[in-house]
Amino acid sequence: FLSHPEDLGIVAVGFSGGQCKPGVDAAPSALIESGLLTQLREELGYKLHGDDEVHLYTDLVPKEDPPYRNMKNPRAVSNVTKRIAEQVYSHAKEGRLVLTLGGDHSIAIGTIAGSAKAIRERLGREIAVIWVDAHADINTPETSGSGNIHGMPVSFVTGLAREEKDEFFGWLKPDNLLSVKKLVYIGLRDVDPGEKRILRENGIKAFSMHDIDKHGIGRVMEMALGHIGNDTPIHLSFDVDALDPMWAPSTGTPVRGGLTLREGDFICECVHETGSLVAVDLVEVNPTLAAPNDVGAHETVRAGCSLVRCALGESLL
Amino acid sequence: FLSHPEDLGIVAVGFSGGQCKPGVDAAPSALIESGLLTQLREELGYKLHGDDEVHLYTDLVPKEDPPYRNMKNPRAVSNVTKRIAEQVYSHAKEGRLVLTLGGDHSIAIGTIAGSAKAIRERLGREIAVIWVDAHADINTPETSGSGNIHGMPVSFVTGLAREEKDEFFGWLKPDNLLSVKKLVYIGLRDVDPGEKRILRENGIKAFSMHDIDKHGIGRVMEMALGHIGNDTPIHLSFDVDALDPMWAPSTGTPVRGGLTLREGDFICECVHETGSLVAVDLVEVNPTLAAPNDVGAHETVRAGCSLVRCALGESLL
Amino acid sequence: FLSHPEDLGIVAVGFSGGQCKPGVDAAPSALIESGLLTQLREELGYKLHGDDEVHLYTDLVPKEDPPYRNMKNPRAVSNVTKRIAEQVYSHAKEGRLVLTLGGDHSIAIGTIAGSAKAIRERLGREIAVIWVDAHADINTPETSGSGNIHGMPVSFVTGLAREEKDEFFGWLKPDNLLSVKKLVYIGLRDVDPGEKRILRENGIKAFSMHDIDKHGIGRVMEMALGHIGNDTPIHLSFDVDALDPMWAPSTGTPVRGGLTLREGDFICECVHETGSLVAVDLVEVNPTLAAPNDVGAHETVRAGCSLVRCALGESLL
Ligand SMILES: [Mn+2]
Ligand SMILES: [Mn+2]
Ligand SMILES: [Mn+2]
Ligand SMILES: [Mn+2]
Ligand SMILES: [Mn+2]
Ligand SMILES: [Mn+2]
Repeated sequence: FLSHPEDLGIVAVGFSGGQCKPGVDAAPSALIESGLLTQLREELGYKLHGDDEVHLYTDLVPKEDPPYRNMKNPRAVSNVTKRIAEQVYSHAKEGRLVLTLGGDHSIAIGTIAGSAKAIRERLGREIAVIWVDAHADINTPETSGSGNIHGMPVSFVTGLAREEKDEFFGWLKPDNLLSVKKLVYIGLRDVDPGEKRILRENGIKAFSMHDIDKHGIGRVMEMALGHIGNDTPIHLSFDVDALDPMWAPSTGTPVRGGLTLREGDFICECVHETGSLVAVDLVEVNPTLAAPNDVGAHETVRAGCSLVRCALGESLL
Repeated sequence: FLSHPEDLGIVAVGFSGGQCKPGVDAAPSALIESGLLTQLREELGYKLHGDDEVHLYTDLVPKEDPPYRNMKNPRAVSNVTKRIAEQVYSHAKEGRLVLTLGGDHSIAIGTIAGSAKAIRERLGREIAVIWVDAHADINTPETSGSGNIHGMPVSFVTGLAREEKDEFFGWLKPDNLLSVKKLVYIGLRDVDPGEKRILRENGIKAFSMHDIDKHGIGRVMEMALGHIGNDTPIHLSFDVDALDPMWAPSTGTPVRGGLTLREGDFICECVHETGSLVAVDLVEVNPTLAAPNDVGAHETVRAGCSLVRCALGESLL
Repeated sequence: FLSHPEDLGIVAVGFSGGQCKPGVDAAPSALIESGLLTQLREELGYKLHGDDEVHLYTDLVPKEDPPYRNMKNPRAVSNVTKRIAEQVYSHAKEGRLVLTLGGDHSIAIGTIAGSAKAIRERLGREIAVIWVDAHADINTPETSGSGNIHGMPVSFVTGLAREEKDEFFGWLKPDNLLSVKKLVYIGLRDVDPGEKRILRENGIKAFSMHDIDKHGIGRVMEMALGHIGNDTPIHLSFDVDALDPMWAPSTGTPVRGGLTLREGDFICECVHETGSLVAVDLVEVNPTLAAPNDVGAHETVRAGCSLVRCALGESLL
């Protein structure tokens, strides 16, 4: 689905406004400093577009940003994700694969909005999204307990949450949206009661850790990709907290009982092997969060780099 | 098989006489302090019976208790397990699900004796037992090397070990016993030569860690539950040392190469899903055992809570 | 395939010249001190041959040993592996099972050369090799980046690398060689581009970590043993770096995303169960390499002992 599969658009998002812990905005720099972009260029042979500089979007964050419909920092997140949508769109419109390095998971409002629109325009198709996460991130402003928008992106990009006002995600138009039928979750293990209800009522396909233990990750990927079908462009949105804290401790909301790094890499490899990948997000790496041991942040960054390389074609043999 | 599935009888057993390391008697308090009972009440909707107080059974421990047939503390363990049998029986007779928080694994002499008898009387059926453990705990007093009774409970409740004298488990009557055909082991990896012989000679179904690696935990649970059959009340006796020391270091006899916490939770979830569960034991959490790092005891208690919640109906989706 | 399956020939190789980090020569002593040979004798009932003393081969290491065809220490490695080949051959010729404790993986040039020749002479058959490793160790002197011979043993024993001069492995004769059709890799995850090409061009069977995640270790072992066939003597060459650094940190070239100890033990158990095992190597344990925590070396030695015991018949039930 890419006219220029060797061209990779990079969007580096130093933004943490979708939740309350500082530090996740430092992730893109940490990933780049640990050599990720160089590896993509030299080892995997990509031609990189977009600048190596990390966007901080400070111009888009208003001085005053009181809650609206229970959402924290609603104007900032809306402004920043709108800008990200434009960045992703401009790369995807050119037929490039797009890699977005977050940032918290609220930024997926922008990445999905951008790639959904570009793929519709360029190919007349709907994208599918594989959302790898400990969490479903599908709260509406009303079902959310915390008001953190990084727990709501899926409800906005699927249109389950709507808002007219432009400054509060009203800029999301039908062209930007994802069908709930084209959404597949992998790795869920901490889902709010309200979210469980939303998943059930909308018949959304979800593979929890229980399913992975039951069937094995190999069979789960077969089923996940089977649900999407052969002929659909895939946007992979990977929250590093899908990994077990043993491999990725430095993240804002770690949950035990997660994916091993091997399983995480395997998921990314399988998605790459489809040949249908059009966009990848890696989010929620927070190198500033102190881990039980000092190597935690370093390990989490390394894990993130590994996931991205696997999604972009690194293979063992 | 429960007339009141929302009613949960709690038996909190602060007893460590089945083995030689102090501290396992502190487990029920630690589990309760970490919020287990509150979670069962508030999140899973159970109505709790029995008191929140932990039984120490000091009145049942004689001043002098010399070995008998190689068993250490034989009178104390016999007295205490007899009392536990009565407690479990009184809950189970009412049609309640019973949760026993140990204590060392010798206490399962009491829990199984109590639920076997109640189910026979109430439903005219035999129970099945799923014994999740690194060890088989099926030594007879004569095959045991250590004399610790927590390595013998299965031989007593199956009648493989017998004793006339009331003060040495002579109180176990046919109504209290479990058929070896209704026993399934999961997680074995440290089985004494004498125990291996007993397992073979009695054709007891056992899934070792080798079997779990070979088939995957999903298939093993299918086979284990298939062996028991659809129509049999299940008593789950979970020794926390079935988990790998990585997840449950604070236990008296840790053995490497064990279940991941994910696999442990999965086993409990599968047993719950049968709808046939009538009793659960959680044993051998020893919060006083120093682990390589300070978080060991806390992690083990958390793992124990997770296992219990999964057995009692917590699910990921 | 063994005329005396209870007789075990021991070759203890304190040699580290196939790579540049000192310490791997201390592994046989560490394994023996931790009780490995006693366990094999007393628990598994083997009669041990060869001395308990570790060979240091200092007489075979020349004063000057400049690189040749890019190989480091070429004369020392050639001399030592030639001697090892003679030792293994003399045990295997008697119909004994042979256990070699390395040392770095270059020593497999000797162990395979010795067992291939003995099995040809004694049974008129070719051996198969199961090579369990994070690495393929199949570089030729020309494709190797480092010049370390422990990255080349497979190319020499398969005849992919050749050399006339006796002092540079010219002593390897057709009788010493292994067919590439009889070689199976398990656990690969760090394979050089040149090695990938060699594997592809020679149609060598290899199961990477991706395959293990995809199919599960149970199915992978079925496929690996199926490739070899029922009727073939098996030489198992186990590099401890096949295990994840979580279980075996003390090794020269650790690579993340490896086998769990359970999977490693499982591989060894399955190979034992074939009844076709004629030789086992355990290599690359380096007890002197400092691990993040002090228990690393001890854990690695324990893991190594566990692997050997499983290969030699220890079973869980
Ligand atoms: Mn998450
Ligand atoms: Mn997320
Ligand atoms: Mn146990
Ligand atoms: Mn036990
Ligand atoms: Mn290696
Ligand atoms: Mn090797």
